[in-house]
Amino acid sequence: MLVVMQSHASEEQVRAVCQRIESLGLKAHPIPGTIRTAIGITGNKGAVDLGVLESLPGVVECIPVSKPYKLVSRDAKEEDSILRIPTPLGDVIVGGDKVALVAGPCAVESEEQAFAIAERVAKSGVRLFRGGAYKPRTSPYSFQGLGEPGLKILAKVRQKFGFGIVTEAIDNESLDLVEEYADVIQIGARNMQNFSLLKRAGRAKKYNVMLCERGVRTFADHSRNTLDLTIVPAVKKRSHLPILVDPSHGTGKRHKVLPLSRAAIAVGADGLLVEVHHEPDKALSDGMQSILPEEFAELTEEVRQIAAVLHRQVN
Amino acid sequence: MLVVMQSHASEEQVRAVCQRIESLGLKAHPIPGTIRTAIGITGNKGAVDLGVLESLPGVVECIPVSKPYKLVSRDAKEEDSILRIPTPLGDVIVGGDKVALVAGPCAVESEEQAFAIAERVAKSGVRLFRGGAYKPRTSPYSFQGLGEPGLKILAKVRQKFGFGIVTEAIDNESLDLVEEYADVIQIGARNMQNFSLLKRAGRAKKYNVMLCERGVRTFADHSRNTLDLTIVPAVKKRSHLPILVDPSHGTGKRHKVLPLSRAAIAVGADGLLVEVHHEPDKALSDGMQSILPEEFAELTEEVRQIAAVLHRQVN
Amino acid sequence: MLVVMQSHASEEQVRAVCQRIESLGLKAHPIPGTIRTAIGITGNKGAVDLGVLESLPGVVECIPVSKPYKLVSRDAKEEDSILRIPTPLGDVIVGGDKVALVAGPCAVESEEQAFAIAERVAKSGVRLFRGGAYKPRTSPYSFQGLGEPGLKILAKVRQKFGFGIVTEAIDNESLDLVEEYADVIQIGARNMQNFSLLKRAGRAKKYNVMLCERGVRTFADHSRNTLDLTIVPAVKKRSHLPILVDPSHGTGKRHKVLPLSRAAIAVGADGLLVEVHHEPDKALSDGMQSILPEEFAELTEEVRQIAAVLHRQVN
Amino acid sequence: MLVVMQSHASEEQVRAVCQRIESLGLKAHPIPGTIRTAIGITGNKGAVDLGVLESLPGVVECIPVSKPYKLVSRDAKEEDSILRIPTPLGDVIVGGDKVALVAGPCAVESEEQAFAIAERVAKSGVRLFRGGAYKPRTSPYSFQGLGEPGLKILAKVRQKFGFGIVTEAIDNESLDLVEEYADVIQIGARNMQNFSLLKRAGRAKKYNVMLCERGVRTFADHSRNTLDLTIVPAVKKRSHLPILVDPSHGTGKRHKVLPLSRAAIAVGADGLLVEVHHEPDKALSDGMQSILPEEFAELTEEVRQIAAVLHRQVN
Repeated sequence: MLVVMQSHASEEQVRAVCQRIESLGLKAHPIPGTIRTAIGITGNKGAVDLGVLESLPGVVECIPVSKPYKLVSRDAKEEDSILRIPTPLGDVIVGGDKVALVAGPCAVESEEQAFAIAERVAKSGVRLFRGGAYKPRTSPYSFQGLGEPGLKILAKVRQKFGFGIVTEAIDNESLDLVEEYADVIQIGARNMQNFSLLKRAGRAKKYNVMLCERGVRTFADHSRNTLDLTIVPAVKKRSHLPILVDPSHGTGKRHKVLPLSRAAIAVGADGLLVEVHHEPDKALSDGMQSILPEEFAELTEEVRQIAAVLHRQVN
Repeated sequence: MLVVMQSHASEEQVRAVCQRIESLGLKAHPIPGTIRTAIGITGNKGAVDLGVLESLPGVVECIPVSKPYKLVSRDAKEEDSILRIPTPLGDVIVGGDKVALVAGPCAVESEEQAFAIAERVAKSGVRLFRGGAYKPRTSPYSFQGLGEPGLKILAKVRQKFGFGIVTEAIDNESLDLVEEYADVIQIGARNMQNFSLLKRAGRAKKYNVMLCERGVRTFADHSRNTLDLTIVPAVKKRSHLPILVDPSHGTGKRHKVLPLSRAAIAVGADGLLVEVHHEPDKALSDGMQSILPEEFAELTEEVRQIAAVLHRQVN
Repeated sequence: MLVVMQSHASEEQVRAVCQRIESLGLKAHPIPGTIRTAIGITGNKGAVDLGVLESLPGVVECIPVSKPYKLVSRDAKEEDSILRIPTPLGDVIVGGDKVALVAGPCAVESEEQAFAIAERVAKSGVRLFRGGAYKPRTSPYSFQGLGEPGLKILAKVRQKFGFGIVTEAIDNESLDLVEEYADVIQIGARNMQNFSLLKRAGRAKKYNVMLCERGVRTFADHSRNTLDLTIVPAVKKRSHLPILVDPSHGTGKRHKVLPLSRAAIAVGADGLLVEVHHEPDKALSDGMQSILPEEFAELTEEVRQIAAVLHRQVN
Repeated sequence: MLVVMQSHASEEQVRAVCQRIESLGLKAHPIPGTIRTAIGITGNKGAVDLGVLESLPGVVECIPVSKPYKLVSRDAKEEDSILRIPTPLGDVIVGGDKVALVAGPCAVESEEQAFAIAERVAKSGVRLFRGGAYKPRTSPYSFQGLGEPGLKILAKVRQKFGFGIVTEAIDNESLDLVEEYADVIQIGARNMQNFSLLKRAGRAKKYNVMLCERGVRTFADHSRNTLDLTIVPAVKKRSHLPILVDPSHGTGKRHKVLPLSRAAIAVGADGLLVEVHHEPDKALSDGMQSILPEEFAELTEEVRQIAAVLHRQVN
């Protein structure tokens, strides 16, 4: 934390701020400049909320220096984390020189639908299958997912096609079940600040973390979200965690999925999460952004070629 | 929903889109213009996701017309909803010509703290007390609230000072308890898309809804959030629900709470939710934005005068 | 500027950064913390772009401390600037305990229109008249303003009704003319980064600066812009300049102009800039956000009462 | 334009809105739905501002349907525009199966600097050189560019190395000169709403338009701007114009330029605009985001390989 003093601040005011800092068990480092004094603070282990210093006389503002994330930062672990996701057909590797593909429908709608899509994407060589059994929908009138019966369908997909299963949990109850049936627990964008759910996820057995970029909010009206590919090199600089990209939710438009998938691999993402549906115009959710199995086959091929330019292999 | 066709779209393409609309059980209304044709759709009761029409040949885009909120809209109920919150000292009215004030600390820290603040704000004539027992914090290292013991302290505040109690629930478990102890269940900004929690809240006994503006995200760096007071007349136009304003979270800065409280009442809000702490620099959370009890007394006085300009009374 | 080092940064890397800072003629102040070292920099007079330090080995990021505005800050001048705008009917004062109102149409459309509106708003006691002769429009097909003939109409309004004139310049050519005809030169939101125009404005004879809040961009879809009233106390803390509020452009909706005008004065703004049109549905621009003269009379009355709560007078 | 009526709107109100539309010389198409009536409007050639209909009784809102851009849309011209930029070494083609690279420093600082960089980037086979003679800077204390002497240096670079020259104009005066010296006139992001400059640019002799994505504003704090690559397929769908990507300004960070350049070509951009400096830490502007000539050589090589996956050639 850096406390910036007013240019008019008296020596006494600077001294008072320093005393207050020391009284909190921290160390104050005044830096007198030509225009004003700033005061560096060290020794804070996160327990003290220093924002309150801002209301002391002579203080202009408090600038935080340390980042609030500790365990996931490169400070905590310098080398890349490389994850192994067990599947009936052998481990899928995420990170390092391996790129992982996850494909499947937005929501599991029925056994027929899940099997039809699974069969088709398996042909592209993909070994991770996605599909939601619990859907956090903005409208209570929209399809909410099949719940546990959906998870059972995913378990059958796992058994029949050898896929590892990636599916979302939306509260403590569903997380208990997802932990039992799936290989990767997905936490959706809308639950990024559902701290109660995040605490429960942190107690899960399968607790290796992958990040996923799926779009940020901007003023752009040409896509549902704005897929921020610049986050990939930014995360790689700050964190050792692998990062996937979801071009389906990240753009919300079918015609953007292929070009943005190519771009995601070109920018250095460790994998893709792609919505595929054999009958997208009958999909109960997200039909607009789902691609056809044959489009996915083309995607896989182009992505392989681009990964090769970066000396990486799709697995 | 309005489907906008390309200016080059053939008659056949327009016809195909209309047929598709009719095949979904809806009615298509083609509107041929000088440049292009648009197709209005009626009869949709929310069950069909029409975005998928966007991928039909000749379609430029689909523009939604109906709003996804039904029950809270002026369409469903034309006149203002006026709520009564029961307290030991009689009902507090929210809406109509009455303005309600809610005050108290960000978090309940101890019985001593809660009583000290309650005693002071009671002197300003306020009858609704706020204070969090469950705190959804960004960092797992921050103070998380006292939990049920905090609710018990609030129950004592209720009994001793006659306040109605307003406090937050953050998951299904805490909502069960909050429903038991409090008079108003607060759902925080971070849980606005926690649909699992919202469904549980919808089943609560005390289910009268008040809205609360507590800041939107902007590029402004001078405040934690940007309090959007323009939402007050906007909500009044669209919805019959009362709307409060929280100038404490909405600005995040102590010196802005008084001016924005005046402005909130001037713009027509039905009440205020204000963080007050007798020792803000020792507060375990949100000390930066809490005002002192004597500042709150001044706030109450100025707010009364401004309400009077709008022919309303604070209660 | 504060340079934040990686927690792994070697002593050598810290030393190298310090040497580089000193080689630029500045002073380095290393602050060794428990986790990492930060390096404060003093002595920078704005000539050196320090961002480049971010690419030195071991550096995480560079955090700017000084603000880029100097002359307008409270550092340069502690007490409020109070401006006097000369009008044929005597000076209008902006700032201190005086609140100024500026009213008139978005654009000057004809002498008849300008006179009709001027006559009506004069009745509310307003002494500053606004109206655009040059209109920066998004579409080249929209009405672009009357140009110099519009300025001549404004000059007649000045003479006949005694108003001070506030009007916009959009390039160097129009600024020459506006400077000749008007009492206040307006620089529009779209030209805030037109540095060529700003340099020319800085050379104008009438160079006293007033700020004007007229909305920021947010995700809100209920208004054209989001009027950010929190900026008023924020500006008052940082700068000695007076600040007006434009509730017409700031909201873009007629039904919001009155409530937001009240709120602007309640929050402490030094004045209002309001679009008034006697026939808003025939206006060549901004009809949607213009209020009627009789609505403006009501606005003036309510604003006077609220100003009185803050011990200020409208002039 | 689509006018949405309230669900309670009376038939009379619907009729009144239709009459008003017809009185403006347009055609009204009422679409009665189960919940409400909407009214489509056709025949508007852009002359009438219909927003004012929003204030008629019974109207909820007005939704625009037509886009305000006409000439650049696919409606006006279906096939891709392919541009030819003449250079002493032959035309550079932008669009179709050709990808164009533009490289050079942010600002022309001296003949030595410009020549040193030009010589190095020429080795990568690039034929378009960028460099600013006029710099629109946020701070008046920052380097403002060399002005016409800078243009003369660029003319020498043109002559000596055979480059086509791309450089920015910031006002009418500089545009006159840029038009004389350069092959491509650049309009910067800060002047996108400087309509006076855009009108002058529209009268330039070299008036073929290329778009350039250089980042949008988001809440991301890891980069100066957020490069929005999803705009590339979005523009390709709506417009026939070619679109370049500027990964230097678009990210503001040197370590992101290479990955985002690869991604830009992978997503389908028609070219890149890259800042290269042989001594970036001595650059008078934008040193933080400039890459070294040897990094640019690597970029060129990887970009060629990725373009080949899309069956395109760099030229």
